[in-house]
Formats: sequence, structure tokens, C-alpha cells
Amino acid sequence: MEKTIAINAGSSTLKFKLFEMPEETTISSGQVDRIGIEGSNFVIKTPDGKKVEIDKPIKDHEEAVNLLLEQLLKLKIIKSYDEITGVGHRVVAGGEIFTDATLIDDKVLQQIEALKEYAPLHNGANAVGIKAFKKVLPNITSVAVFDTSFHQTLPEKNYLYSIPYEYYTDYGARKYGAHGTSHQYVSKRAAKLMGRPLEELDLITMHLGAGASITAVKGGKSFDTSMGFTPLAGITMATRSGDIDASLVSFLERKLELSPDEMSTILNNKSGLLGISGVSPDLRDIEDEKDNGNHRAELAVDIFVNNIVKYIGSYAAEMGNVDGIVFTAGIGENSWKMRKRIGAALKLFNVKIDLDVNQNGKGERFINAEDSGIKVMVIPTNEELAIAQQVERFKK
Amino acid sequence: MEKTIAINAGSSTLKFKLFEMPEETTISSGQVDRIGIEGSNFVIKTPDGKKVEIDKPIKDHEEAVNLLLEQLLKLKIIKSYDEITGVGHRVVAGGEIFTDATLIDDKVLQQIEALKEYAPLHNGANAVGIKAFKKVLPNITSVAVFDTSFHQTLPEKNYLYSIPYEYYTDYGARKYGAHGTSHQYVSKRAAKLMGRPLEELDLITMHLGAGASITAVKGGKSFDTSMGFTPLAGITMATRSGDIDASLVSFLERKLELSPDEMSTILNNKSGLLGISGVSPDLRDIEDEKDNGNHRAELAVDIFVNNIVKYIGSYAAEMGNVDGIVFTAGIGENSWKMRKRIGAALKLFNVKIDLDVNQNGKGERFINAEDSGIKVMVIPTNEELAIAQQVERFKK
Repeated sequence: MEKTIAINAGSSTLKFKLFEMPEETTISSGQVDRIGIEGSNFVIKTPDGKKVEIDKPIKDHEEAVNLLLEQLLKLKIIKSYDEITGVGHRVVAGGEIFTDATLIDDKVLQQIEALKEYAPLHNGANAVGIKAFKKVLPNITSVAVFDTSFHQTLPEKNYLYSIPYEYYTDYGARKYGAHGTSHQYVSKRAAKLMGRPLEELDLITMHLGAGASITAVKGGKSFDTSMGFTPLAGITMATRSGDIDASLVSFLERKLELSPDEMSTILNNKSGLLGISGVSPDLRDIEDEKDNGNHRAELAVDIFVNNIVKYIGSYAAEMGNVDGIVFTAGIGENSWKMRKRIGAALKLFNVKIDLDVNQNGKGERFINAEDSGIKVMVIPTNEELAIAQQVERFKK
Repeated sequence: MEKTIAINAGSSTLKFKLFEMPEETTISSGQVDRIGIEGSNFVIKTPDGKKVEIDKPIKDHEEAVNLLLEQLLKLKIIKSYDEITGVGHRVVAGGEIFTDATLIDDKVLQQIEALKEYAPLHNGANAVGIKAFKKVLPNITSVAVFDTSFHQTLPEKNYLYSIPYEYYTDYGARKYGAHGTSHQYVSKRAAKLMGRPLEELDLITMHLGAGASITAVKGGKSFDTSMGFTPLAGITMATRSGDIDASLVSFLERKLELSPDEMSTILNNKSGLLGISGVSPDLRDIEDEKDNGNHRAELAVDIFVNNIVKYIGSYAAEMGNVDGIVFTAGIGENSWKMRKRIGAALKLFNVKIDLDVNQNGKGERFINAEDSGIKVMVIPTNEELAIAQQVERFKK
């Protein structure tokens, strides 16, 4: 009855998933929202599928962790805390220090906090989550799983920017990428689905959610990825701009009389699909407006598709080959329309989508037609399970 | 005996080429350097191939134009100013106003000056050059040829950034591209060389000089291009960074305590091949250092090649096809090593380079082997001739 809990702490949220290990069965999952903000609440799913909601002020991450553990007992999801033998914490920025998941000790915790400057909103919250858990369950196997670790295999020519080299050596200015746990997980699953060794495959994995990134996975290793020094870069996202001409930063700061922080907020929170469409950051709303004939909504969809097509082309070119592409995360798993559009736009690779399987199929599957030039897959990501699997490696 | 002069004015330079038209014979060419700076000088080539150099203080562009015209007479390159019936001025930024070359009148001149904010260093100098010429030769056909015009055919989805849409409508924040005259010229020549109508071709033209840009030319029209709002974006260049994560701008400003202007200078003048290699902005120096085993020089070469390969992949993907790629400008025309490397890296397209023709051939030619997946061409660019050709369209 060994259980492992996967924790994903954001600035005002704490998501969790509890697994029976090594069976990998999900026992419970849930989320604390609006931590430290008015209207905080907690939702937890019990093993029998019931959803329990609690609305009450939750002032910090420690209180959130306490509430979560308390409810696991109260709802009889666990009989005692001793059942939980491991916890895995998702950490956004691992810099060049963490090339793999790692057991958390005081030094590791310090390093995670020091890496805050690469992910100001995230690493701070991650560290708070780690400390809160440590306080309540000090003796379990506690592991940090980094969003950036998978991308530490990027070759130098793909992680360096063409800026003065000293900025890399002195300040760590390089590409780190993100969503590594997800890209790694789905690329492994893709190889299984294809029935071929991962080591032989050139894959392009597309994690398309509110945050979105595309990775060239060559022989199971991250070879290139669309997010950059921060998660701002790459394709257009719900509210992030993705790649822009860096000259626009100072041009717009001057024109709009914005401080660097204000500009950063605009590029991270007011841009992307929201900025183009003026409708919503949510693709579903944008699709609706597009169907109503809203030109800017249509444009947002077109730009999203085209960004993805261009990244696929560039990664196929630099790998010299592509065997398959993988859709995952919110949009990637759920929007058959978007997958159909992207497939239709990939004429260069002679992609053919099986429209029925694409639209009506469920779960992990091929969605390409038999005569497609490359394989096209949908693979639901499971970052929490991937995190729990990492924890198992460290249990004695 | 009608002659047309093509003028390219930079912040402290003025280049010219004098053509017999419509024969398109080059009669003379030359350059004024260090205008307004100590050590200004003037070099002019006479029709018999002699080079005349004059070192003297040249305080502004008007003086440079006067000196140039004076020397044309003195060296008997022309018998009287009446022989010059047209002048074409290269202008860097044409915004969305100028979708084609245009006759210069007072309003056009004003507009060119107003567009200065998109190309601070260039448009100002361009306007000064226009005025200086107008003063000396007020009655000839005077035409502005814009670097950006060719790219005005970009579809909306390719010229808009994923930032709030109002920044485009209110401030013109969009992709304009550059080197348009060159991309247009070489794509026309490529169609001739291929013996196929330009309208049927999907080409990728690579203008690789100190400034470098890549354009997807679909049916003779610019479909996408690597430079952006300014010429900073795209592939790595001699001293420009090309594409970077926009978050790096404020990160580095903070870390290095730099003003936005200082940061801009670094990204435009200290980055690119120079920044990575630490050796020189000149690829020839970098190649030498690479041969000496300098790792950072090797890295600069690798990044340059990889940037190009990725753009080719992305443009082929978004066009859905590519029939041929074209090398032009300083590096594109002269570095057989670079062309060989890029060709070797284009495995996705099954590119095969004819090593002999690549290294030993001269001028406009195919450099692909017969069994190459796509055509590969070298086409020397001739922006001055393209400018002179535009002037002819407006002569009565």
C-alpha cells in the first residue's frame, strides 16, 4: 500500500495527484486555488469518483498542504500518513545544475530558490510547496522533478543565443526550455505506440496547452525546443507572445511609456491568442467567435497553426528527418479541429489525417491515415505520473 | 547615352553605381566613406577599371554628392550632367505606405523622414541623400526604391506578431522585413535559370551578408521573411543577434545595468557571429580561427548553418513545398565552404551539392548535383541594377 503524491505548486495554486505505486493507479487528485487570495477553495476527487469542494480562506502553501493531507485522512482516502512514502515536486527552473530529478536536501532546496531569477513566479512557489511538505511529512522520499532537465541534452548550437558569449558564462543566458517532463513522457509513449526503439526515432512532440512548446526529440533526447531562456519564447500561446523581434520591446516601452516590468506583463499575460483575437485566451472561445465570422479570431487560429507548422518544418530540417509528431496537453489532446488544420497544413510531409479517428477516437492513438508520410499521434500527457515514477527511483 | 545612377546612403557612407540604360552596362561605381568623421575618403572606379582615391574631409552627404558628381565630370566618365537622366535611391523603411518603388516628390520625402522611427540610422541618411541629389540635379527622374516593398505581399498571419492587435493598428508594430530588392532580383533570376515561370515556383532566397535574411518567395511574391519589425530579427548575422527570447532584453538590462539604447547597441553591434566567436564579425576571420581549433569560432559557424537550415525547413513547411534555394550576397556568393555545409545539413530535402561547381564555378549557376532533391543556386545579387531598372519605369 505504498503511495506517492505528485505536487505542482504555482504562485497561488497547488495541484496534486496521489498514486498507488508501483501499480501507477490514480487514487485521488485535486487542486487548491487562490491561495492567499480572496475566494480560495479546494477540490478533491475521491477514489469512487466523488468530488468534494471546500471553500475557505487558505492563507499560504503550508496551510494548503495541511488541508490537503487532512482531507486525505478525513475522506478515508488513506488510513494514515505512513502510507505516503514519497512526494515528487514539479520545479520549473533547474538551470544547468539539475540534469535529472534529484532527492531534495537543504542544499538542493537552496539551489532551487537561487534559480528563482529564471522563473520568478514559479520557483518561489515550488520552494514554498517543498518546505510545506517537509514540515508535515519530514521523513518521506522527497524528490524534485525539473521542467528543464529533459532539455539539458540540447547541443550547444541549439541552446546558445547569438549574443556576447560572456552573457552565457556569467549570467546563464541560454535556452532552458520547459514542459520537459511532458515531452519526455509522451516521446517514450510514442515509441511504445509505434513499436520501435525510442533510440532510433526522430520525433516532434507538441505540448499545446495555455503554455505551449514544441520539442525535437532525437533518439529519446531533447535536441531542440521552442521555449527559450524563459517560457515566453516559441509559438504563440494563450497569453504569451512567443517569438517576437526583440527590438519591439524597447520600441513599445517608449511608445506606450511602459516600464520593463509592465512590458513583461503585457508580453506574458496580454499577448498571444488573447492579444491577436481580442476575444479570450481560451481557444474554445476563439473557435466560437471564428465561427461567428470574427476576423481577428480567425487570424489567431491561423497564426497558431502556422507557428506550429513552421516549428515542425524547422525541427524536421535540423534533425534531417521526422518519423512522427505527437499532440498532447489541453489543446493537443482535445481540439480535433486544430489537429485537423495542422495536419492539412503539413503538405510538405504528405501528412494525411484519419478524420474519423482524429475526431471520434479516444486516448492514446495514431490519427494519421495509412498513406500518411509520417505518423501522427495523440498521446495524453501525464506529468503527475511521470513525476511519481521519478520518485520511485529514489525510494529505498 | 542615357544614364541612371543608383544611390545607397548610410549614416556615414554613400555608395553609388552608374549605369548606361537601358543597356544595363555598369560605367562606374564607388563609395564615399566616413562622411562627417575624421578620415573621410572617396573611391571611384572608372570605365577602364582604374581606381581613383581621394582623401579629404567630407562634412555631410551634400558635399559627398557634390564630390561624386564633380569627379564623374573630371574623370570624363560623363561629358555633362545632362547625361544623367535618372537617380534611384535605396530607402530602408517604407512601412505599409510604399508597396512599390515611387517617384519622389515633397510628400514622399516627408513620408520617408516620418518612417525614420522604424530604421533610425538608415532612413535619415536616405532622406539626406535624396535632398542632396535634388539640390544638385533637380530635374531628373528621382525614384525611391524601398527595402521593405517586396515584403508587403506577406499574408497577415505572417506579418503580425502575437501581441495586442492595437500595437499594430496604432503603432505599426508588425514584420516589415528587409533586403527586398535583393530577394526580388534573385528570385526573378532563379526562375530564368530554372527555365520555369516564377509564378509556379516555391523558392527560398538567402541574402547572406553582414546583414542576412531569408525569404520564402511563393509564385514570385514574398510570403515570409526572417527579418522582422527591424533588421535585428532572423538568423544570426555578423553583429546582430537574430531571434532571441524577448525576456532576455530586460534580464540583461537589469543584470548589466544597461539602458535600452545600450542594450540595443549590444544586440545590433556586438552580438551575432562576433558575439559568439569573440573573434570578428567577418566570417573569413572566423573560418581561419576555426581552422586553428578555436571552439567558439566553430560554434559560430555551426550556429549560422543551423539557423539557416531551420529557416529553410520552416519556410518549406509553410509553403508546403520548395523547388529551389538561392544563395546570394557576400557570404552566399563567396563562401563555398558555407554553401557546402548548408547543403550537407539539408538531408531532409535530400540536397546534393556538386562540389566542383560549388567551389570552382563562377557567377550565376546551379550548384546541386543531378540527383539532388531540390535545386540549389548561386545568384550574385545586384541591388544597384535592380534600383536602376526601377527608375527606368518612371522615365518619360
